[in-house]
Amino acid sequence: MHPHMSDTPRAPAELDLGDSGVVRRIAEAIATLVPHNRELGIRLVECDGDSVTLALPYSPRLVGNPATGVLHGGAITTLLDGASGTAVFVALRAPIPVATLDLRIDYLRPATPGVEVHARARCTKVTKNVAFVRCEAYHPEQVDDLVAVASGTFVIFRGSSLGGRGKTP
Amino acid sequence: MHPHMSDTPRAPAELDLGDSGVVRRIAEAIATLVPHNRELGIRLVECDGDSVTLALPYSPRLVGNPATGVLHGGAITTLLDGASGTAVFVALRAPIPVATLDLRIDYLRPATPGVEVHARARCTKVTKNVAFVRCEAYHPEQVDDLVAVASGTFVIFRGSSLGGRGKTP
Amino acid sequence: MHPHMSDTPRAPAELDLGDSGVVRRIAEAIATLVPHNRELGIRLVECDGDSVTLALPYSPRLVGNPATGVLHGGAITTLLDGASGTAVFVALRAPIPVATLDLRIDYLRPATPGVEVHARARCTKVTKNVAFVRCEAYHPEQVDDLVAVASGTFVIFRGSSLGGRGKTP
Amino acid sequence: MHPHMSDTPRAPAELDLGDSGVVRRIAEAIATLVPHNRELGIRLVECDGDSVTLALPYSPRLVGNPATGVLHGGAITTLLDGASGTAVFVALRAPIPVATLDLRIDYLRPATPGVEVHARARCTKVTKNVAFVRCEAYHPEQVDDLVAVASGTFVIFRGSSLGGRGKTP
Repeated sequence: MHPHMSDTPRAPAELDLGDSGVVRRIAEAIATLVPHNRELGIRLVECDGDSVTLALPYSPRLVGNPATGVLHGGAITTLLDGASGTAVFVALRAPIPVATLDLRIDYLRPATPGVEVHARARCTKVTKNVAFVRCEAYHPEQVDDLVAVASGTFVIFRGSSLGGRGKTP
Repeated sequence: MHPHMSDTPRAPAELDLGDSGVVRRIAEAIATLVPHNRELGIRLVECDGDSVTLALPYSPRLVGNPATGVLHGGAITTLLDGASGTAVFVALRAPIPVATLDLRIDYLRPATPGVEVHARARCTKVTKNVAFVRCEAYHPEQVDDLVAVASGTFVIFRGSSLGGRGKTP
Repeated sequence: MHPHMSDTPRAPAELDLGDSGVVRRIAEAIATLVPHNRELGIRLVECDGDSVTLALPYSPRLVGNPATGVLHGGAITTLLDGASGTAVFVALRAPIPVATLDLRIDYLRPATPGVEVHARARCTKVTKNVAFVRCEAYHPEQVDDLVAVASGTFVIFRGSSLGGRGKTP
Repeated sequence: MHPHMSDTPRAPAELDLGDSGVVRRIAEAIATLVPHNRELGIRLVECDGDSVTLALPYSPRLVGNPATGVLHGGAITTLLDGASGTAVFVALRAPIPVATLDLRIDYLRPATPGVEVHARARCTKVTKNVAFVRCEAYHPEQVDDLVAVASGTFVIFRGSSLGGRGKTP
């Protein structure tokens, strides 16, 4: 499993996470402090109580097929994973460490070259130890013609560290 | 679904793909001509008739958790997806366009910071229209302590283009 | 991949599948002519142009945990798979053979012992060769507290048989 | 998530689970005491320290396609899920409650009508809270021509009950 930015001990625990402005600011920090998210240019678009939307701008560096200019599926997956992890954090309303346990991505169609991709994620269920997330990727001007959908499962480390994960704070 | 480098019309169809040296050279081209693979520093490690191994070098730019330095799951997924797509191409022994239909990744443990990750992929089944692939990610010095495993399904476009995928050659 | 009832050559091709009454009748036939669906007591609840709902009645024969009486996950998966395959058929509006390529099921909570489970499925995307389906299982009196969700990929055999699948009509 | 037979409080905790004969007997109990497993005729074939093999005999009651006599994918999934859950229990060597969190099944080819299906499962990783399992289904006389493969994630309830799962012991 791979840990998410919410693992960082720097997230200010004293913030009132019930305040939606604060939730948004935290989500923004998560999206932008993760080095690989920043490297890809991922940014927060929107965050309400239920869901989080991140954006991945088009770049030639992210291309998977040089003949067509279509984005690499891996870049889209990085976006989907990032949005999903942020959605767990938003659902928990607290800086509790989480890690992606597994992720399934369906690639419904190639992303259109030159166009930004958005990913909107929402927790469908949170239990004591596990969160289930659903995430959809699309071009903002074609919200209904999905590029990819993901369903993921995340482990929540409430007050404890997972066996063998010594590197997690 | 997102198309793979084997979509490129530039792959020389007249090559004798039965020659393992050539298979290796083609696999190398696929791994390195894909812009986003190159951006991440992905390179071919090994290619035999059955399986393909790609490597992802560690880099601070690929980090998912700034507190621990652990790689972003998305970067590992890009590696897994790239290795899996290359394995389909190697199994087909011909430059036939393929696209990832879906991918499931299990993240078994965080990658060790500072250490390169390898991904070894193999087709478990190829039918007329679909290829199934299994891929494992690990540190080369700890081959048995897997970091992640993926199973993916790929569409093969034998002589035809998929409905609505006008951008594929 | 495992073929679905819509493989049967007995489906009357001359029916006007645009007629929603007929679509419903076909969906009902699919749900009830499949021997293992019938064995589990699966029946059609609803079918509109977009989605299909099947029901699995509770039975002690379907229990997975004798200590709690909770249904076996396999029985719920049979329901999810059956509803998903039926949704593909409804989306195609024609008796074209389809087969499940892969299925991912998230089990969000144990089903309540003694209570019927419903599964509602909808195609999220249909291309020439592949259909993507999303399906949700729940108790009819607790529609929002999902028991399980599934995402599946189906191959569509338009006018041709898949390589190596000689047994499909 | 759906709980497994190992939830039953009747499993004798005092047994020496290190003894492979006992492990086998426990696995047999798990396979055969689950009502829906018994209903389908599922039985234990083999159990060593690492893996578990269950068998599903062919029966007209389990058919998914009446035109071809091919088994229902749901029946095969019930077998895969049962074998996977048993493998977790065997890996834990203790009657600790577990529940399937998610399962992905790739259906590689239709099962041959009239022929028994075997499923061999093995834990690839066990952490404090989660077990990852890989399972393969095949006809015993064609071990290499897989019918289906599954990868699943299971929650382990070590000494605690999961939030909202009041029915689990």
